[in-house]
Amino acid sequence: MAGNSNAGDAKLAWVVGVGALQGTGAAVARRFAKEGMVAVVTGRSPEQLAHVVRAIEADGGAALAAPGDVTKERDIIDILSRIETLGTLEVGVYNAGNARWAPALELDSASFEDTWRVGCLGGFMFGREVVRAMLPRGRGTILFTGATASLRGRPSFAAFSAAKAGLRMVSQSLAREFQPAGIHVAHVVIDGSIRGEKILTRLPELAEKKGPDGLLDIDAIADAYWYLHQQHRSAWTHELDVRPFAESF
Amino acid sequence: MAGNSNAGDAKLAWVVGVGALQGTGAAVARRFAKEGMVAVVTGRSPEQLAHVVRAIEADGGAALAAPGDVTKERDIIDILSRIETLGTLEVGVYNAGNARWAPALELDSASFEDTWRVGCLGGFMFGREVVRAMLPRGRGTILFTGATASLRGRPSFAAFSAAKAGLRMVSQSLAREFQPAGIHVAHVVIDGSIRGEKILTRLPELAEKKGPDGLLDIDAIADAYWYLHQQHRSAWTHELDVRPFAESF
Amino acid sequence: MAGNSNAGDAKLAWVVGVGALQGTGAAVARRFAKEGMVAVVTGRSPEQLAHVVRAIEADGGAALAAPGDVTKERDIIDILSRIETLGTLEVGVYNAGNARWAPALELDSASFEDTWRVGCLGGFMFGREVVRAMLPRGRGTILFTGATASLRGRPSFAAFSAAKAGLRMVSQSLAREFQPAGIHVAHVVIDGSIRGEKILTRLPELAEKKGPDGLLDIDAIADAYWYLHQQHRSAWTHELDVRPFAESF
Amino acid sequence: MAGNSNAGDAKLAWVVGVGALQGTGAAVARRFAKEGMVAVVTGRSPEQLAHVVRAIEADGGAALAAPGDVTKERDIIDILSRIETLGTLEVGVYNAGNARWAPALELDSASFEDTWRVGCLGGFMFGREVVRAMLPRGRGTILFTGATASLRGRPSFAAFSAAKAGLRMVSQSLAREFQPAGIHVAHVVIDGSIRGEKILTRLPELAEKKGPDGLLDIDAIADAYWYLHQQHRSAWTHELDVRPFAESF
Repeated sequence: MAGNSNAGDAKLAWVVGVGALQGTGAAVARRFAKEGMVAVVTGRSPEQLAHVVRAIEADGGAALAAPGDVTKERDIIDILSRIETLGTLEVGVYNAGNARWAPALELDSASFEDTWRVGCLGGFMFGREVVRAMLPRGRGTILFTGATASLRGRPSFAAFSAAKAGLRMVSQSLAREFQPAGIHVAHVVIDGSIRGEKILTRLPELAEKKGPDGLLDIDAIADAYWYLHQQHRSAWTHELDVRPFAESF
Repeated sequence: MAGNSNAGDAKLAWVVGVGALQGTGAAVARRFAKEGMVAVVTGRSPEQLAHVVRAIEADGGAALAAPGDVTKERDIIDILSRIETLGTLEVGVYNAGNARWAPALELDSASFEDTWRVGCLGGFMFGREVVRAMLPRGRGTILFTGATASLRGRPSFAAFSAAKAGLRMVSQSLAREFQPAGIHVAHVVIDGSIRGEKILTRLPELAEKKGPDGLLDIDAIADAYWYLHQQHRSAWTHELDVRPFAESF
Repeated sequence: MAGNSNAGDAKLAWVVGVGALQGTGAAVARRFAKEGMVAVVTGRSPEQLAHVVRAIEADGGAALAAPGDVTKERDIIDILSRIETLGTLEVGVYNAGNARWAPALELDSASFEDTWRVGCLGGFMFGREVVRAMLPRGRGTILFTGATASLRGRPSFAAFSAAKAGLRMVSQSLAREFQPAGIHVAHVVIDGSIRGEKILTRLPELAEKKGPDGLLDIDAIADAYWYLHQQHRSAWTHELDVRPFAESF
Repeated sequence: MAGNSNAGDAKLAWVVGVGALQGTGAAVARRFAKEGMVAVVTGRSPEQLAHVVRAIEADGGAALAAPGDVTKERDIIDILSRIETLGTLEVGVYNAGNARWAPALELDSASFEDTWRVGCLGGFMFGREVVRAMLPRGRGTILFTGATASLRGRPSFAAFSAAKAGLRMVSQSLAREFQPAGIHVAHVVIDGSIRGEKILTRLPELAEKKGPDGLLDIDAIADAYWYLHQQHRSAWTHELDVRPFAESF
C-alpha cells in the first residue's frame, strides 16, 4: 500500500474503481478526504492512483493507494486486512464497472462475462467483505454506483445492463439484510454522461453540445455520496438518481 | 398573512401541508429557515401555523403564516401573489395529504375524492403555480412528499395510493417538462412511520416498540429536503426514499 | 337498457368505456360475446352502443347497451342492479379514459379533474361495485385498461398520467385485497397507438407511417383481455403490457 | 440427440432447463408439443429428459431429448445446429436457473458465480444464438423464465436476485433490439411456489398448507408461455407475472 498517512485510529473511506483523476471514483475519494477521512483508493493503475493520492494530499487531505483488481477476491480481502490495521472502515464505495455496448450478435460471451465480473461479482464480494468488517461495530456505509442501465435494458446494452441490474440487487439484498444491524447500504443511479476524463478526451464535442452543466459534474456526484453517508439512521435512503438538469428522462 | 419578517428581497421557501409543530411540514419549514430563508407556512389551522412561526422565530429564523386550503386554487394563487411581494420564491414544498385507509368496500366515493383532492389535485395546482412564478427567473426547487403508497397499492390503501401515485406522476411530468428550464422538481418517498404528533399521541406503543431511531425523525427527513434543494444542477435527483434503518422493505 | 338477449342465467361481461365500433372497448365486448357471454356495453353515446350491439348480434353474439356515465356512481349502481337480474356477472372491464395532453401551464384544474374522474375515480367506483357483486360467489374477473402513462409521467401528460397511475393503484389494491377471495383483478398496459377510430380518422398518416401491424390491433388487444379472464386461478397475472412489434420502448 | 420424430419441416420449440417431469420446463415442452410443434428438451439429466420425451409421445406429441449444459456455449451451438436440420425453430424457452439462498456472509463467490452462469449467462448465450437462427426468417419467439427475485433483492437472495435481474435485462435488451425485426421476446415473472417435483417431494407440508390452487400449477404456467407465443405481432407482451390467487404480493 503506497502513500503515507497518520492513520492510527483514523476513519477510513475505501473507494474502489478509482481511475483517472478526473473521474467519479477520484472525486468521491476527494470528497470523503475533505471531510477528514482517510481515503483508500483502489484501481488497477498504480500511476493513476498515485495522481489521485497526490491531489488529495495537495488539498490537505489524507489518502492511500491500494492497487488491486476488484474482480479478485484475494485482492479485496488483502486490502481490507491492511485497512483494518490503519483505522476504522467507515465507508466502502463500489464504483467499478464501465459502460460497454455492442449489438447483441457481436457480443461474445467472454465480454459479457468480463462486464459482469467488474460490474457485479466484484460488487458482491466487496459488499460482503465490507459488511463483515463493519458488522462487529454495527456501523458503516456501503455505496454502489449504478446507472440508467441498472433499471432497464436497451439495444446494445445487454452486458452492461445485466451487470448493473445484478449489482442493484446485490445492493438491495445487502440493505435489507444488514441495515437493521446498523450498516447503511445505498445505490446511486447516475443517469447521463459524466464530465470526466473519458468524455473530455474522447468526446469533447459532446461536452460542448451539452452546454454548461449539461454533463454530470463529478464533484456534484460526490456530494450525493457524502450526503448518503452522513444521513441519520432514522431516515436512510436506499436509492437516489442524479442527472443533469437538461437531461430528458 | 400573519407573522412578521424583514423580507424585502428575501429568499422564500413555501411549505404547504404544515400542521403540528411536531410534523414533517413544520420540520421542513424550520430547516429552510435555519438556512436563512423565510419560511412561509400554509395549512388549515391558523393556530398550528402560529406555533410553527413562533418556534422558528424563537430559533432566530424568519417565518410567515399563510393559512389556506391547498385544494382551493384561489388560496394557492392568493398566497403566491402575496409571497411575490415579499421576496423571491426559491423553494416550494408540497407536503399535504394524510394516509387514510379503509377496506375497499367501506370506502365511499367522497372519501376517495377527498383523499385525491388533498393528495394529488392540490399538488398539481401548487406545482403548476409555483412553476409559473419561478419560470421567469429560470431557477427554483419544487419538492413533493411521497410515501410507499406512491409506488404500490395494498389492501385498504386504494384511495391513498391512487392519490399518491398520481402526485408522483405530477412530479415526474413537471420534472421532465421544467428541469431543462432550470426548475428542480423532486419527490421524496417516505417509507415508514414518522416520529410525529400523530404517532406520539395516538400510537405511543408503536414508537416504543420500534425502538431508538425506529421511526423517521422529522428533522432527518427535513435534511433530505434541504439536500435536494442545494444540489448542483449538473446532478439533480428526482427521487429518493427515506426509511428507518430497522425497517424491512 | 336497450338491446335484447335471451339472458336468464347467462354469463355477463360488462365493458364500460365503449365508444366507436372501431375501438378497444367494442373489441373487448365482441371478444367476450364470441365466447358465449352476454356483453353489456356502457358508454355515453347510445348511438355508438347501438352500433356495437348490432355488430355483435350480426356475428351471432348477445349484447346489451347500457348507456351511462361511469363517473356517476348512480349510473354504475343502476346498471349493475339491472345486470344482476339478467344473469351472472363474470367479467367487468374498465376501459374508460382518454389520453389528453397539454403543457402543464395550460392545463386548467377542471381539465385535470375531469381526466381523473373518468380515468381513475370511475375505475374505483366500478371496481368496488363489481367486487361487491362478485364476492358472494367468490368468482369473477375485473380488468383495467392502462397505458404507458400509468407507469411514468412525461411533459404534457400530468393529468393523464396522474389519473392512469391512480387507476393502476386501484387495480393493485383490489387485486391484493380480493384475489384471495377468488376475484381476479388485472391491469393491461397498452403501450403505443391503437388502430382505432381516432387514429384512422384523425391521423391516417400516422397509421400509414407505422406500417403493417405498426399500430395495436384492437382484436389483438381484446385477446389479452380474454386470456386474462380464462387463466387458471393457480397462476393469475396481475399486469401485462402490449405494444406493436416495431415499437421502441 | 435421443428420441425420434418425423420432423423434416417441422416447427420446433426448444426448451432448456428441463428437469423433472413434474416441472415447469417439462410442462412448457408438453404444451408446445400439444399444439403440434416438436419439443426439443435440454437439461443435464438424460434420464429425466427421456421421461419427458416419453410422456409427450404417450400423449401423441413429438419430442426430442438434447442433453446439454446451457452454461456451455458449445452445447448451445451444437444443439442449435442439429435442430436446424430438423425443421424451423419457432420458439426458444430459457427456463434454466434454480432459486438458491444463503445469508450473504455465508455465500461464497463460487456459488454466486454458479448461480449467475445458469441464471443469466446461459440465458444471454441462448438468446443470442436463438436470435441468430431466427433472424433470417424474421419470425420467432424467445421466452425467459423470471421470478420475484428478478424485480427486487431480499435478504439471502443476493445471488439468485442478481442473476435473475440480469436475465431480465437480457430479455429487455433483446426485445428492444430484435422485436422490430420480427422476433418476439418476453419475460414471465413467476411469483410464488410451483406445484412441482421439488415442493411435492421436499416440502409436502407447504403444498398442503397452501391449499387447492395455492401453488402455481405447471400447466397453468405453460399456458402463459403458449399465449405469449401466439400473440399477434401488433400487440406483443414483453412481461407478465403469474401467481396463485391466494398469494399476497
